[in-house]
Amino acid sequence: MEAIEELAVQPCTSSLYLRPFRLSYRQNGTKKFWDFMRTHDSVSILIFNTSRQCFVMVKQFRPAVYMCETERHHPQVFESQDKESFTSLENPLPAVVGVTYELCAGIVDKPGLSLEEIACEEVLEECGYRVSTAELRRITSYRSGVGLTGSRQTLFYAEVNDQMRTGGGGGQPEEGELIEVVEIPLGESMKFAYDETFPKTMGVIFSFMWFHNNIAPKLPKKEERSLESQ
Amino acid sequence: MEAIEELAVQPCTSSLYLRPFRLSYRQNGTKKFWDFMRTHDSVSILIFNTSRQCFVMVKQFRPAVYMCETERHHPQVFESQDKESFTSLENPLPAVVGVTYELCAGIVDKPGLSLEEIACEEVLEECGYRVSTAELRRITSYRSGVGLTGSRQTLFYAEVNDQMRTGGGGGQPEEGELIEVVEIPLGESMKFAYDETFPKTMGVIFSFMWFHNNIAPKLPKKEERSLESQ
Repeated sequence: MEAIEELAVQPCTSSLYLRPFRLSYRQNGTKKFWDFMRTHDSVSILIFNTSRQCFVMVKQFRPAVYMCETERHHPQVFESQDKESFTSLENPLPAVVGVTYELCAGIVDKPGLSLEEIACEEVLEECGYRVSTAELRRITSYRSGVGLTGSRQTLFYAEVNDQMRTGGGGGQPEEGELIEVVEIPLGESMKFAYDETFPKTMGVIFSFMWFHNNIAPKLPKKEERSLESQ
Repeated sequence: MEAIEELAVQPCTSSLYLRPFRLSYRQNGTKKFWDFMRTHDSVSILIFNTSRQCFVMVKQFRPAVYMCETERHHPQVFESQDKESFTSLENPLPAVVGVTYELCAGIVDKPGLSLEEIACEEVLEECGYRVSTAELRRITSYRSGVGLTGSRQTLFYAEVNDQMRTGGGGGQPEEGELIEVVEIPLGESMKFAYDETFPKTMGVIFSFMWFHNNIAPKLPKKEERSLESQ
């Protein structure tokens, strides 16, 4: 995943992915405008593997995160970007600075599918577990960005076990996805959540804490499980 | 805040606020590119008023959220946006669908100031409380968006009381900010956090839960405080 080469950056004057619009309006008598991005809503899923008592997450190289760190170290990279030309990144930072830990997630771009159906597809594609919509627990929804996109994300919880694993996950290589499935043991999860040397989204920290408040107290104790299985 | 009129939307071909770039790279042998937005890091602050045992938050009209809801109800608004022209929104949705509850927050765009100094400025400007950097507790940092921006947000906790209030807050009207300060009583806060009829960011839900796990158990009981003050 971290074999990243031939990095180059250019201004982006037209994009299938970034669609900027401007809203003009009058608020309490004052004329205003606001630039925003049209984008899709999304779902994300906290996955807990009960067989091995661990969270199942994904790890990806994120170009936007990488460039954010590049600018922090080399602000001049963007200063020379007035012209419509590629700038090769000399002495690029190691790719690992752009790798983040995230919940399994996906955008809502299939009109015929419910949020739950899209969530199940993502769990299968990215992490390799087959779950049904009835097995999802909806945690809540919120705005994933209020300045730029305004889009809504809905967070689900899914419990899986090793028998539900049908493949390795990893996303859809044909769509350019390169996703590594990672497991965070329950016992280390809150330490991981607050350890900033592992770059992550707020969704990871929030959902781990939600699990510890809402699910962990009801988990069978390890001793009880051992006795039951004897 | 909700007196919004003369709504019109247009494509945005150039913006001081949205700066799109394209990163091209080769990953594990495959040539790829990714469009992203260059933006600023940010800070957000969970504020708890000990005098009145409530959280202090901000409420704003967010054009990006409003347009997200507009598209949900009237998808055709964006379909006719191929030409460089304003489209007035006929029968616009009520402005309240674009109003969100958020933590006090701000972007990091002053090179000479620390994250803590910027956080204190935002607490004063938006909410009207004077806090010093020594009074801030850093909770953690994370990526506020991994797809589009990759930027980092750092979350702080600040305890205030009524004596620290120096004004009404409300943001900087000269910069077009129109911010309403709202107080959420501690006793109602978790119900509020999961009540989706109040549109909000994940930061609100996360930080309220963090408070209940980390701060609430150490708060003096109401009875004890009453006895002490007699």
